[in-house]
Amino acid sequence: MASPAGSWWLVLIWTYLGVSLVCSDPTYETRYFDQKIDHFGFAEDATFKQRYLVSETHWKKPGGPILFYTGNEGDITLFSNNTGFMWDKAKEFGAMLVFAEHRYYGESMPYGNLSFNDPIHLNYLTSEQALADFAVLIRFIKESADAEHSPVIAIGGSYGGMLAAWMRIKYPHVIVGALAASAPIWQFEDLVPCNLFYQIVTNDFKKSGSGCAESVSKSWAAINRMAETDDGIRWMSSTFHMCSPLKCKEDVAMMKSWLSDIWINLAMVDYPYPASFLEPLPAWPIKEVCKHLKNPNLDDKGLLQNVFQALNVYFNYTGGTPCLNTSQTAVGSLSDLGWNYQACTEMVMPFCSDGVNDMFEPQKWDFKTYSDECYKQWGVRPREKWITTMYGGKNISSASNILFSNGDLDPWSAGGVKQSLSDSLVAILIPDGAHHLDLRSNSDFDPKSVIEARALEVAYMKKWIEEYRQQLNIQDF
Amino acid sequence: MASPAGSWWLVLIWTYLGVSLVCSDPTYETRYFDQKIDHFGFAEDATFKQRYLVSETHWKKPGGPILFYTGNEGDITLFSNNTGFMWDKAKEFGAMLVFAEHRYYGESMPYGNLSFNDPIHLNYLTSEQALADFAVLIRFIKESADAEHSPVIAIGGSYGGMLAAWMRIKYPHVIVGALAASAPIWQFEDLVPCNLFYQIVTNDFKKSGSGCAESVSKSWAAINRMAETDDGIRWMSSTFHMCSPLKCKEDVAMMKSWLSDIWINLAMVDYPYPASFLEPLPAWPIKEVCKHLKNPNLDDKGLLQNVFQALNVYFNYTGGTPCLNTSQTAVGSLSDLGWNYQACTEMVMPFCSDGVNDMFEPQKWDFKTYSDECYKQWGVRPREKWITTMYGGKNISSASNILFSNGDLDPWSAGGVKQSLSDSLVAILIPDGAHHLDLRSNSDFDPKSVIEARALEVAYMKKWIEEYRQQLNIQDF
Repeated sequence: MASPAGSWWLVLIWTYLGVSLVCSDPTYETRYFDQKIDHFGFAEDATFKQRYLVSETHWKKPGGPILFYTGNEGDITLFSNNTGFMWDKAKEFGAMLVFAEHRYYGESMPYGNLSFNDPIHLNYLTSEQALADFAVLIRFIKESADAEHSPVIAIGGSYGGMLAAWMRIKYPHVIVGALAASAPIWQFEDLVPCNLFYQIVTNDFKKSGSGCAESVSKSWAAINRMAETDDGIRWMSSTFHMCSPLKCKEDVAMMKSWLSDIWINLAMVDYPYPASFLEPLPAWPIKEVCKHLKNPNLDDKGLLQNVFQALNVYFNYTGGTPCLNTSQTAVGSLSDLGWNYQACTEMVMPFCSDGVNDMFEPQKWDFKTYSDECYKQWGVRPREKWITTMYGGKNISSASNILFSNGDLDPWSAGGVKQSLSDSLVAILIPDGAHHLDLRSNSDFDPKSVIEARALEVAYMKKWIEEYRQQLNIQDF
Repeated sequence: MASPAGSWWLVLIWTYLGVSLVCSDPTYETRYFDQKIDHFGFAEDATFKQRYLVSETHWKKPGGPILFYTGNEGDITLFSNNTGFMWDKAKEFGAMLVFAEHRYYGESMPYGNLSFNDPIHLNYLTSEQALADFAVLIRFIKESADAEHSPVIAIGGSYGGMLAAWMRIKYPHVIVGALAASAPIWQFEDLVPCNLFYQIVTNDFKKSGSGCAESVSKSWAAINRMAETDDGIRWMSSTFHMCSPLKCKEDVAMMKSWLSDIWINLAMVDYPYPASFLEPLPAWPIKEVCKHLKNPNLDDKGLLQNVFQALNVYFNYTGGTPCLNTSQTAVGSLSDLGWNYQACTEMVMPFCSDGVNDMFEPQKWDFKTYSDECYKQWGVRPREKWITTMYGGKNISSASNILFSNGDLDPWSAGGVKQSLSDSLVAILIPDGAHHLDLRSNSDFDPKSVIEARALEVAYMKKWIEEYRQQLNIQDF
């Protein structure tokens, strides 16, 4: 995962924590707000249409709270469909729901089709601009909807969770609190060990079946040995049912990277019920995968045949996949370009693996190579230390009213806040949870830990609302 | 003051709270830091040399605090010379002193001589970029000077005080607290009445001599009546010893604006001892001025002859001014361009006068006209609501460890925080103080109120340092 290409793959996947079944009634209006392209400069004074979704079905006027999803790297409808928690709780809170699309994703393109043309058009794709969008939009909504006294709570998952937390850190006058689900705000610089992410994936596999992680661990050497001969490469193409046969060692490297990403994906979406995110999957998919990876001590061909069976759980659960494509790890129409650029500018997340404490091939974190790759691809260079300078790194104790929820199964919890930092910077742990399971709709299959987590989240959110209302009585806002 | 031109005059003046006598030893090194021109975008990746002054004479390594002046709109040496408070207290705190120059002022020009050429080169002159400069610079200083555990306190006066407060609001992980002296952070939108500023000037004149404010108040109509005839205009040119004779009504309007600014200046620098700021002045200069303005009931010529005598206190205290120049209100080599641009972008401060509750001619606040003037001059339009969206307006109760000091004599106290907002957002009032008197060096003529204010400021600063050190023992930063 040391190469930027690796991170991008990963992120492509991360992006697509797709569509879940929403049991509540997701009726909303789609609206557009004229947002300044550049909040931090005045030479570019043009605006673009930021898309946002609003549901007022259960909103108790005036003063009912606003639950505000801080959109992340994707079409906002994905997140509104994927955040059943908000729909489930709207009535209980008497809340307006707002889902705000992140600039440069979905329909919210500052320069239309030119937005990704070059570094000049991409220049306004930053987290600071996105947060400013949210602040300006919230002010507009409050002023135009007669909601001046409605407390606003930011909610987000993954990068959206990072934005929710940073929103409270930077704009505490705009929101009363934030629920930051599976938000790896510490996956920067040396704030956490760079190999923790891979260790968590490995642990998920270890726990899900005897011999499973070891099988994966041994598969890399098996692939490398097979790749030494043309026969071996042909055999792998055929055994893995590759859509395009492997031709050279570079193709094999690509295949290994693709395999890594699939194991990571599985860790992220290791949910307790069947779900269709990246791919349609059974409940507890790693357990299913591990059923095929019980014996790490087979010869190379035996081991790799088992790996193929395991892959089939991921790609062919519904039986409709004729061949496997190493340029694809997730379903359909995803634009990963935006996050790719963000990872090459602000979102510099160091990853590494050692092959000892994890089941992956060893790979060091190498910022210089990363930066060079970014420059080749985008004409910009990442700034390694910027995010911590801007948002505080581990020194965020001055902030308040942020819930950091993390699932133990989720590799992104590596960069998450897993210990409470104060009475109001609260870590919520979900031992049986994968990537922001708590933001998903209620399910009969929910483990107790996520049910409790959601209850705690609701309790804190109610406390913030109550405190805000008490303040209003005392203090002129 | 409704016209931008008016504000700019004023600001020109505000800028130049010039050089004071520094009794302590102001030895420092001048250093330069390679600062990104654009912190918030990646297309412009170039750097410029930010100047900063460092004094380590009294610094107790390791862990001694850093007192960090958040430079405002001018050459940083002006502020290091003008902030005797820091020099006076360096030894007591065992502190490193740092004075950081604000980008686009002094020597810190992002594009050298081209910096003010056009809106493109000016694009990075914003408070957000300046705060980011400070954050990046502090991180660099701490890392390079083995000062990782040195608490940093931001100190600033006027716009520099606004920056100090905003720095603590936005980067509480970088500084442990802020002393914001005479910082009108609420002089935006409708947070304070737009005529309060002029009322304070008026009160200063009312208190300083019987008939004084009334004389000024009546002088406008007298000038207007004189301006109705060529004879009258000639008479005024001669009586006021104008360097360039008044020629038309526009010149007369200019003269009135210039007069207004002088009355305002006097209110800002109404210090208890002789000082050379805008001009060399006696102690309590308004009292001196008012000695010439005792009788408001004279005829027009009598009244205006007295106004000239009063002006002479301001311009000719040392007896060396042969004639008065309406294009000058302050001494020497000031570049007001930067603030002028800032007032036309972010720093939209509404001012107005009514001629009833103040001694000025009535002038309404008119944003549209203001915006049009800005567009004419700079090719950019101001954003009226941005500063409050960014920095919170009156809703800053989530912040902590900020001291807001204000002098009752200072018209800028109109937009200041004059009541404590919490235990750690503390208003410090200095009844006998003009514009950030507390930041100036100790003087035998200091009124008791400023001595007490400085003592309180020192006590709070020590408390912040102590709390930071206690935290360090408990918590890993």
